[in-house]
Amino acid sequence: MRGRSFILTCLIFGLGLVRNVNCGNILVWYTEGSHWINLKPVLETLLDRGHNVTALVPSSSLFMDVSEPAPYHYETFEVSLTKSDVRNTMERFFRFWIYEAQHMNFIELSKTFYKTMTDHLEMCVAYCDGLFKSEAVLNRLREGKFDLMFVDPVYPCSELVAEMLDVPIVYTLRFSLAHSMERLCGQIPAPPSYVPGAMSKLTDNMTFSERVFSGRPTSFCEMMGKADIWLIRTYWDFDYPRPFLPNFKFVGGIHCRPAKPLPKDIEEFVESSGDDGVVVFSLGSIMNNMTKERANTIASALGQIPQKVLWRYSGEKPETLAPNTRLYDWIPQNDLLGHPKTKAFITHGGTNGIYEAIYHGVPMVGIPMFADQPDNMVHMKSKGAAVIMDFISMETKDLVDGLKAVINDPSYKENAMRLSRIHHDRPIHPRDEAVFWIEFVMRHKGAKHLRVQAHNLTWYQYHSLDVFAFLLAIIALVLFIFYKILKSCVVRCCFRSRSKSKKE
Amino acid sequence: MRGRSFILTCLIFGLGLVRNVNCGNILVWYTEGSHWINLKPVLETLLDRGHNVTALVPSSSLFMDVSEPAPYHYETFEVSLTKSDVRNTMERFFRFWIYEAQHMNFIELSKTFYKTMTDHLEMCVAYCDGLFKSEAVLNRLREGKFDLMFVDPVYPCSELVAEMLDVPIVYTLRFSLAHSMERLCGQIPAPPSYVPGAMSKLTDNMTFSERVFSGRPTSFCEMMGKADIWLIRTYWDFDYPRPFLPNFKFVGGIHCRPAKPLPKDIEEFVESSGDDGVVVFSLGSIMNNMTKERANTIASALGQIPQKVLWRYSGEKPETLAPNTRLYDWIPQNDLLGHPKTKAFITHGGTNGIYEAIYHGVPMVGIPMFADQPDNMVHMKSKGAAVIMDFISMETKDLVDGLKAVINDPSYKENAMRLSRIHHDRPIHPRDEAVFWIEFVMRHKGAKHLRVQAHNLTWYQYHSLDVFAFLLAIIALVLFIFYKILKSCVVRCCFRSRSKSKKE
Repeated sequence: MRGRSFILTCLIFGLGLVRNVNCGNILVWYTEGSHWINLKPVLETLLDRGHNVTALVPSSSLFMDVSEPAPYHYETFEVSLTKSDVRNTMERFFRFWIYEAQHMNFIELSKTFYKTMTDHLEMCVAYCDGLFKSEAVLNRLREGKFDLMFVDPVYPCSELVAEMLDVPIVYTLRFSLAHSMERLCGQIPAPPSYVPGAMSKLTDNMTFSERVFSGRPTSFCEMMGKADIWLIRTYWDFDYPRPFLPNFKFVGGIHCRPAKPLPKDIEEFVESSGDDGVVVFSLGSIMNNMTKERANTIASALGQIPQKVLWRYSGEKPETLAPNTRLYDWIPQNDLLGHPKTKAFITHGGTNGIYEAIYHGVPMVGIPMFADQPDNMVHMKSKGAAVIMDFISMETKDLVDGLKAVINDPSYKENAMRLSRIHHDRPIHPRDEAVFWIEFVMRHKGAKHLRVQAHNLTWYQYHSLDVFAFLLAIIALVLFIFYKILKSCVVRCCFRSRSKSKKE
Repeated sequence: MRGRSFILTCLIFGLGLVRNVNCGNILVWYTEGSHWINLKPVLETLLDRGHNVTALVPSSSLFMDVSEPAPYHYETFEVSLTKSDVRNTMERFFRFWIYEAQHMNFIELSKTFYKTMTDHLEMCVAYCDGLFKSEAVLNRLREGKFDLMFVDPVYPCSELVAEMLDVPIVYTLRFSLAHSMERLCGQIPAPPSYVPGAMSKLTDNMTFSERVFSGRPTSFCEMMGKADIWLIRTYWDFDYPRPFLPNFKFVGGIHCRPAKPLPKDIEEFVESSGDDGVVVFSLGSIMNNMTKERANTIASALGQIPQKVLWRYSGEKPETLAPNTRLYDWIPQNDLLGHPKTKAFITHGGTNGIYEAIYHGVPMVGIPMFADQPDNMVHMKSKGAAVIMDFISMETKDLVDGLKAVINDPSYKENAMRLSRIHHDRPIHPRDEAVFWIEFVMRHKGAKHLRVQAHNLTWYQYHSLDVFAFLLAIIALVLFIFYKILKSCVVRCCFRSRSKSKKE
């Protein structure tokens, strides 16, 4: 009964009849970059429905800008790092992954990889440490009577806060490295024979040698396993179908929206392309610069296609830049991808950009850089909606050929449109589904009915090894008894026949 | 584009603006009993949305009554069995399961079980045979331009017809024996450590000895694996959470509806119960009779509770029947369960009845008979919403105690209400979800993006045994080489030292 009236109340407030009435108190965990961009549409919908949203922000945050006016409440806590510390760590990380890693031998690579991972971990620990030393913030959190924590688990430590506040957690994530969190903490079974580890750059149709590579990570995570709902930011337009559990909800494309009209100057440039149309080009919010040589290789390729090109690029203007290409510090990417004149999208393969392309049915040329980007582009290529370039080794001709293929071979457009149809044709919009399950956890103080018993089994129980050992023991016992009986029979027979023959 | 206009068209027709326009042609596979009852609400919704529905009916069908006026088209085909053949087979089957099985030793039991299974299989073959010999019916099916087959796989052979007509299949089922169809044909992974086989009467929290019992069946079913969508008629209010795949949709409670007002005489009897309320008692559509002794045991128990009892029973009036109990040939079960005066439901544990009780939040006393009923009741008992009686061995006192517990101990009502809240609090109504996926398959001519690659792997690939063997071979090779090197070293050393000592 309480549940129903809760829905009704939120619906009424959500419809704007009565505003700012306390429906639920939601605590949002800090995050950065595209992860924060991805969280915002859900938070806005929750606010529209009358909930209170409080976002935790470390003082060194680069993307969660507390100075901007926002409809949610920010709770800032001091950490021992400065903004420039964080920026330096991130830049070192990207430089290593994009440029340096290729030229290293295995030992150098392992050492530097270990160093970058340690840097990241130290940053996470500094954040967690900062929060737990901010006694005033902790007190406000304790008094805040939160109903739920909404967490992107890319930065750990939320589990401790949830434990302290005794509130349920709803996770939202695209995936974890090799699906380790989902498999081990969420208890999803994932036969490695057809479920490739995330970021392994494998498809679900693996050759024998690929399946050798697709291993199973091991780690432990009892705390994370307590989460009530896992909102996974993909869907079967993008991901390969695989087993999952009732508390996993696939809400990919949460941030996608119909295209809005373009700014006047951009609209004029786009319209000037005629029947050839335009190509939209962005390497994401982090990659604003590149070496002169790479920029010239790319610019000269762009000059060789009949389309007009809108390139989001803040670096120095390349010498080979042709008249058909314009540089922009920022482009309205979603609105451009939704424009009928757009023929292709050159992308670094971030999930957000790919989802906008799927939403609008635009084929892609992928130039993946790091993290999940190479893996994301393999997904799009295997579904026939993209070609992939290697950023470091590609020549002008490669990019020209790739662009021409994607624009002129109709199969790429058809496949992009097929993914778009799958994306749109769902029984419920991903944003509504995410909001539904967040509110469900608040209404019912959790979602225990969706949790598998596997969480309560030991590893040998989960794999039925105790049962196997027991059955084996029975077989062994039966064989042993059989052997003993047989032996005594043989001994008696032989003994008798011998004693007989002796008598004779 | 086609997909969107399809939705729109069907919506417009569904809203009643234009009727009987050909949206999609749906062929429904024959089925019987509660399976047919379960299919009807979906068919009615499909008709409301403007689709054409044709149901295949064998001439011997007991439940699909072609003489009654129906909004769907019946396509009848002749089979070599008569209605009384089918009735006799079914009665033999029930008699065996309810009364005879308990008194048999293991060998008798196995023989009779094998006989009943063979009878059922022969009936299935006769149906399939009848259909494929009805040349006129087959021709009409070929010319019918069907978009989809909607199948409850309890009677096999639909796969052959789908293959012949080249149309996609959507299955609807509660489960198959020990989940064999879902696991083996649908490729759902099901760790036997916490996913008990359906009808095993185990919960998902199994002791060691229970997990020994929970085995893995083996059979083969390439044909069934081709189905695009599996509509499973349970949900997590009833079932234990377990892994599933993107093309499995859980639509339990498809037939549930709010209660309508009761007929006048029944309403008066119910109202006369005062604060004590009433108990609703039905053993299902098949079980209309029982032995005199059992009927008297039950009737005398019902006389000992302060509630009024409505008992659906067509047998002879028991001598011990008390004034608080009334017998009915038929009762409006759903409307009674939804009545505020109803305190408990005595049920045989069929899925349909249990779902009506969950829908209205009524605690249960289960007297399971056969098939999935014992297993269903174990689910309800483990969730704290029911007690279980054994039909054959229960005494009057057992039933009285069970009824008093369920009515007077508030935990049963609370748990039933909790299940009811879970049932109602879903992002989309199960009937709408079922219809959505049926229409999806018609719009997109299948749902291949939800199908796991596991369907295309051999068993040793699925379990990564080839990878395992390969890795083992490498280890063996390395050990072998190591051994050879070590051996040659030892030989040389020894040889040298010997030849040295000889020289010396």
